[in-house]
Amino acid sequence: MTVDATALTADLIRCPSVTPTEGGALQLLDALLSDAGFETVRVDRNGTPNLFARWGARGAARSFGFNGHTDVVPVGDADAWTVDPFGAELRDGVLYGRGATDMKSGVAAFVAAAIDFVRETPPDGAIILTITGDEEGPGKDGTLALLDWMQEQSERMSHCIVGEPTCPETMGEMIKVGRRGSLTAHFTVTGKQGHSAYPHRANNPLPAMARLMDRLASHKMDDGSEHFDPSTLAVVTIDTGNPATNVIPAVSRASANVRFNDLHSGASVIAWMQDEVDAVAAAFGVGIDMDVRVSGESFLTPPGELSELVSGAVASVTGVTPVLSTTGGTSDARFVKDHCPVVEFGLVGKTMHQVDECVPVEQIEQLKAVYGRVLRDYFG
Amino acid sequence: MTVDATALTADLIRCPSVTPTEGGALQLLDALLSDAGFETVRVDRNGTPNLFARWGARGAARSFGFNGHTDVVPVGDADAWTVDPFGAELRDGVLYGRGATDMKSGVAAFVAAAIDFVRETPPDGAIILTITGDEEGPGKDGTLALLDWMQEQSERMSHCIVGEPTCPETMGEMIKVGRRGSLTAHFTVTGKQGHSAYPHRANNPLPAMARLMDRLASHKMDDGSEHFDPSTLAVVTIDTGNPATNVIPAVSRASANVRFNDLHSGASVIAWMQDEVDAVAAAFGVGIDMDVRVSGESFLTPPGELSELVSGAVASVTGVTPVLSTTGGTSDARFVKDHCPVVEFGLVGKTMHQVDECVPVEQIEQLKAVYGRVLRDYFG
Repeated sequence: MTVDATALTADLIRCPSVTPTEGGALQLLDALLSDAGFETVRVDRNGTPNLFARWGARGAARSFGFNGHTDVVPVGDADAWTVDPFGAELRDGVLYGRGATDMKSGVAAFVAAAIDFVRETPPDGAIILTITGDEEGPGKDGTLALLDWMQEQSERMSHCIVGEPTCPETMGEMIKVGRRGSLTAHFTVTGKQGHSAYPHRANNPLPAMARLMDRLASHKMDDGSEHFDPSTLAVVTIDTGNPATNVIPAVSRASANVRFNDLHSGASVIAWMQDEVDAVAAAFGVGIDMDVRVSGESFLTPPGELSELVSGAVASVTGVTPVLSTTGGTSDARFVKDHCPVVEFGLVGKTMHQVDECVPVEQIEQLKAVYGRVLRDYFG
Repeated sequence: MTVDATALTADLIRCPSVTPTEGGALQLLDALLSDAGFETVRVDRNGTPNLFARWGARGAARSFGFNGHTDVVPVGDADAWTVDPFGAELRDGVLYGRGATDMKSGVAAFVAAAIDFVRETPPDGAIILTITGDEEGPGKDGTLALLDWMQEQSERMSHCIVGEPTCPETMGEMIKVGRRGSLTAHFTVTGKQGHSAYPHRANNPLPAMARLMDRLASHKMDDGSEHFDPSTLAVVTIDTGNPATNVIPAVSRASANVRFNDLHSGASVIAWMQDEVDAVAAAFGVGIDMDVRVSGESFLTPPGELSELVSGAVASVTGVTPVLSTTGGTSDARFVKDHCPVVEFGLVGKTMHQVDECVPVEQIEQLKAVYGRVLRDYFG
């Protein structure tokens, strides 16, 4: 008896697990994995639901891990959907619903592959599944909570796959081996209000703001590195809110988002921006406050054993040789990378977060087959 | 019998003539001037009240003019006033109320001076008073309407004083012989929305906006001219309204206010800004729309007969030799200058538009004396 990954995906879609709601999704997996001989523990933290599951002995020399999440983004414009977002409708071989792609199918595929594998060929080692109910939200008490708990319990993955969608167009074409870092900076330039006719009596923050944003936006951060695209800075807003054209405002605000590769760190980007801030503040005689939040450092799992293992499995199942990429936004791989080598491989992500999110059943089965092949090769 | 300029100012303050309300102010002046032998005509246009008054023959070789307004800006925070804004309270020799400075006292002073003068020494010529009820508002149907009507009627002033407050601190210290021009430009930069992580797939309008505002704000327009301060450009707002730091916005807007001296015209400033817009739009591959409103061209009544006449009168009455200045915002002199040589002279303007606007009675009497002296010297 094998686990039907498509049916499991459908069952998970029927759990309305919009972040931060558990929605029954982790309960369902907990029961399924327990029945299959996995040791399971709910590792909830601050109300965020998380599930840890291990087959095999704690501290096994080789313990292969999978990471994923069962929470989903909101439905959005419900009227725009042509199906019930939580109905898991199957139409012409395509399964519809919120989370069909991101990433209930990925979780279903690795859970099904893991259960089948341990039933067929119990490995000399362990399989560890870490599944969170908060990847789409703040994420502070999701995969991080699982990893913190594992640290305390001396639970350890030797290697890990995050099952997020990774393929832009065609199943099998891309494995993610790292990600650029990301930070957001908020700038507040403060001068002195006054009358437009007498700018010398005021201290207009806007020329300084324009100069600062120009300097930041026109700076070429790098040309990319061996495994990374060039770093980018996007000024995302500049706001003043002054409706009176005869008044020079006192304050203006702006924000910029930086995606940086392994030639930088959050700290080095901040240091560069602070230098620009200081130079402009001094040149214009204004106050400039900068408030930065680093949401993730860049990381790379250098191509090697893990990426070759996954590439080989992908090629054998799909016939496509995947490229190793570091493009895209953040994922929980940025947390797992501090625990063990990690790569990401999953479905085609085109419909994620969209209306009528859907997944071809064939891709779920291919993904389960890839994960099963990875396990066989890893323990073989 | 002479006209009491202070009592007349108080009577005018008691007329609640907040733009565009007539409030009885022009009716009061109309009656007073008619009784004194002036020919008066209400020259209302599109609901805006205006009063024309002439003593003497139409088309006289020498006809001296005064221009002013009886409308006032709103009270603002009524609770912050310590007096009734329309009560004309006299306290320690100071008269309080909205319009006390700007410019019911100025109107009262020239009306009183003109009536006294024609009664005492009927001149060989004419005295023309043009008084509008909309100087603080849009001004399209105020002094402009009076001048248009005069053109049609072959009514003509040889020279004119606008009675706006002109003295920064001390009575008599400043005559305005011109004004810088003023224009406001609104810029809309349009790119293409996208995700912050993939700026190359979007077309961010903000780097172009920052560059354009930097170029405009950092450009030195001139060093001033013989009679004018340097021209200035003030960026007064930049707005985008994008709350999502992971989204590159499609559109950003900004406004700039330019005060330009006689080295420029509205057209030449627009041409310069359009060149900058075109250069930045081309460099960044964005669309930039510029919408400009010229609220007044710069003008100068070159120092000469009129300014010497007024300077002499000011010096003889106040003991202060006034400087000839072109500083400040716009006034209706910008319209009168197309009709005849014009200068502005009036009270100390410190409290205009403020809470507890007020005028020392002594200054009203000095101003009436200056205007009377001007008339005697002009026709003497």
